Amino acid sequence: MELVSIDDIRTAATSITDLVVHTPLLPCPWAAGHGSLSLKPENLQTTGSFKIRGAYNAIRRCPPSLRDRGVITYSSGNHAQALAYAARALGVPCTVVMPEDARQVKVTATRSLGAEIVLVPPAERKDVATRLAETEGLALIPPFDHPDVIGGQGTVGLEIVEDLPEVDVVLVPVGGGALASGVATAVKSLRPSASVIGVEPELAADAAESLRSGRLCTWPMTRTGRTVADGLRTNLSDLTFAHLRTHLDDLVTVSEEEITDAVAHLARSAHLIVEPSGAVTVAAYLFNKDRLPAGRTVAVLSGGNVDFGFFTNVLVAPSESQGAD
Amino acid sequence: MELVSIDDIRTAATSITDLVVHTPLLPCPWAAGHGSLSLKPENLQTTGSFKIRGAYNAIRRCPPSLRDRGVITYSSGNHAQALAYAARALGVPCTVVMPEDARQVKVTATRSLGAEIVLVPPAERKDVATRLAETEGLALIPPFDHPDVIGGQGTVGLEIVEDLPEVDVVLVPVGGGALASGVATAVKSLRPSASVIGVEPELAADAAESLRSGRLCTWPMTRTGRTVADGLRTNLSDLTFAHLRTHLDDLVTVSEEEITDAVAHLARSAHLIVEPSGAVTVAAYLFNKDRLPAGRTVAVLSGGNVDFGFFTNVLVAPSESQGAD
Repeated sequence: MELVSIDDIRTAATSITDLVVHTPLLPCPWAAGHGSLSLKPENLQTTGSFKIRGAYNAIRRCPPSLRDRGVITYSSGNHAQALAYAARALGVPCTVVMPEDARQVKVTATRSLGAEIVLVPPAERKDVATRLAETEGLALIPPFDHPDVIGGQGTVGLEIVEDLPEVDVVLVPVGGGALASGVATAVKSLRPSASVIGVEPELAADAAESLRSGRLCTWPMTRTGRTVADGLRTNLSDLTFAHLRTHLDDLVTVSEEEITDAVAHLARSAHLIVEPSGAVTVAAYLFNKDRLPAGRTVAVLSGGNVDFGFFTNVLVAPSESQGAD
Repeated sequence: MELVSIDDIRTAATSITDLVVHTPLLPCPWAAGHGSLSLKPENLQTTGSFKIRGAYNAIRRCPPSLRDRGVITYSSGNHAQALAYAARALGVPCTVVMPEDARQVKVTATRSLGAEIVLVPPAERKDVATRLAETEGLALIPPFDHPDVIGGQGTVGLEIVEDLPEVDVVLVPVGGGALASGVATAVKSLRPSASVIGVEPELAADAAESLRSGRLCTWPMTRTGRTVADGLRTNLSDLTFAHLRTHLDDLVTVSEEEITDAVAHLARSAHLIVEPSGAVTVAAYLFNKDRLPAGRTVAVLSGGNVDFGFFTNVLVAPSESQGAD
């Protein structure tokens, strides 16, 4: 299986600059100890998550003859909004296949970016999108299982090493695995001595089990659906598993309480609104120091599209986790 | 009266880089229309506000013989934390004179950064700090009424023009006026065609009255104390008034409801936690378009040290203002 290269990521970086924010590294004096912590706040990215990087790169790399007929994907999350936004910017029609039980706010947000929404039973999302792509001649741009998506997400890692060449540790969330695949590829290529550590919820630790066992393990949605980190319930694909086996140094898991506490810490100390999936890296840094290498650490915050009912509850609730200062 | 120059600001920029984040410009696709809006999010700055720029620059420019005895200021807000942080980074003792009625959370936060706190009756803050500076031989670094503080704050304007050379409009909050003075000096020097517009709460519109009447007007705290934008209750000094008369193109005022609504918009759409004083510029952009020039607009968000009781109320309350999309 051919893996995405650092050159693919460099090429992506040059082609997505007009829509993508080069997010800064934010120092965290409030999280001192165990080396320094900097945040890579992709919650501030266009459409509120890193997903615009991969979605836009993938559209840009489509042959124009295919792209101009339109793009299609299946997603009820951040990838849907990112693809819709990128497609509109290029004047390309966009179709998003969503499960019938998707939250109305997500359907509305994606539609307001100009996408056509097709609602189907949850189990049929991928099949319907694949069939529509074939019958309508649309370019299918999946949420993570695609080299151009991985290449785009890898620009997060490129920016980290550009902005902090002496980085020692990079913490990155693992859901479908494209972000972690791209970031690990970029960081290990440019700074081999740095460790790249994936972070997963304990309740969706399919990637940890896969890496430990050496074979791709899938956990059913009935199991992963219990984590509050809804963006990390997905399993790896063969392609992302191959990248993570090759490049990732380790993978740590965090508890639900640690994730929620990290969301609160980021709000109170960093003035950032981060969704639970995006806060797992800070949960690892604050509450699982003994399982991480020491040194100059960057935690990738993957997105900010939080449910505000959950978020205000987190802000008013007392802390439940132990171990943070 | 000698004004701060663009060269002073350039010099400041080179000397504060090790503690200060070059904050990015964040595009706001959610605030389309009337030209594009970008945010300059100084709520993400070290210690949560732009104040570190001026405080650190002023300490750096003190003669070492004076600085090494220690620095002192009077402030219960963001300047206190910024000065304490910068002083600690340089190994310089720091004293902060605070009013006896300062909120305990602010006293604790400043003390935790290593500063010695002196509590005095509110009306005596400045006099006590001035007297202590003389008797103890400390360097007095006031919150805004100082050319080196203005020079440091001006680096916000320098970064804006560096990152968006074609900027048309810059919106900046006006409290004591050092931020607006520095930003206006930098922007008008580098891009004379751009408009720099100050923004104040209607309830603390002393600067608007001063600019309109051509003489420095002071409003009593009993009057300005009514605005939720607690960082903007201060009056101008002769020095900042002189800068604003020379460089500012206009000054607009915003209502309390508009400020609160802007805080909510920034949370929901930009994933940023911004204090009311920091959100007045976005209140102007969203709700007072008819009073602003059109074009590529940058709104400076000055800080993020919000009261979380207020903030969660804002998030759950329905919008009260009209005019936003």
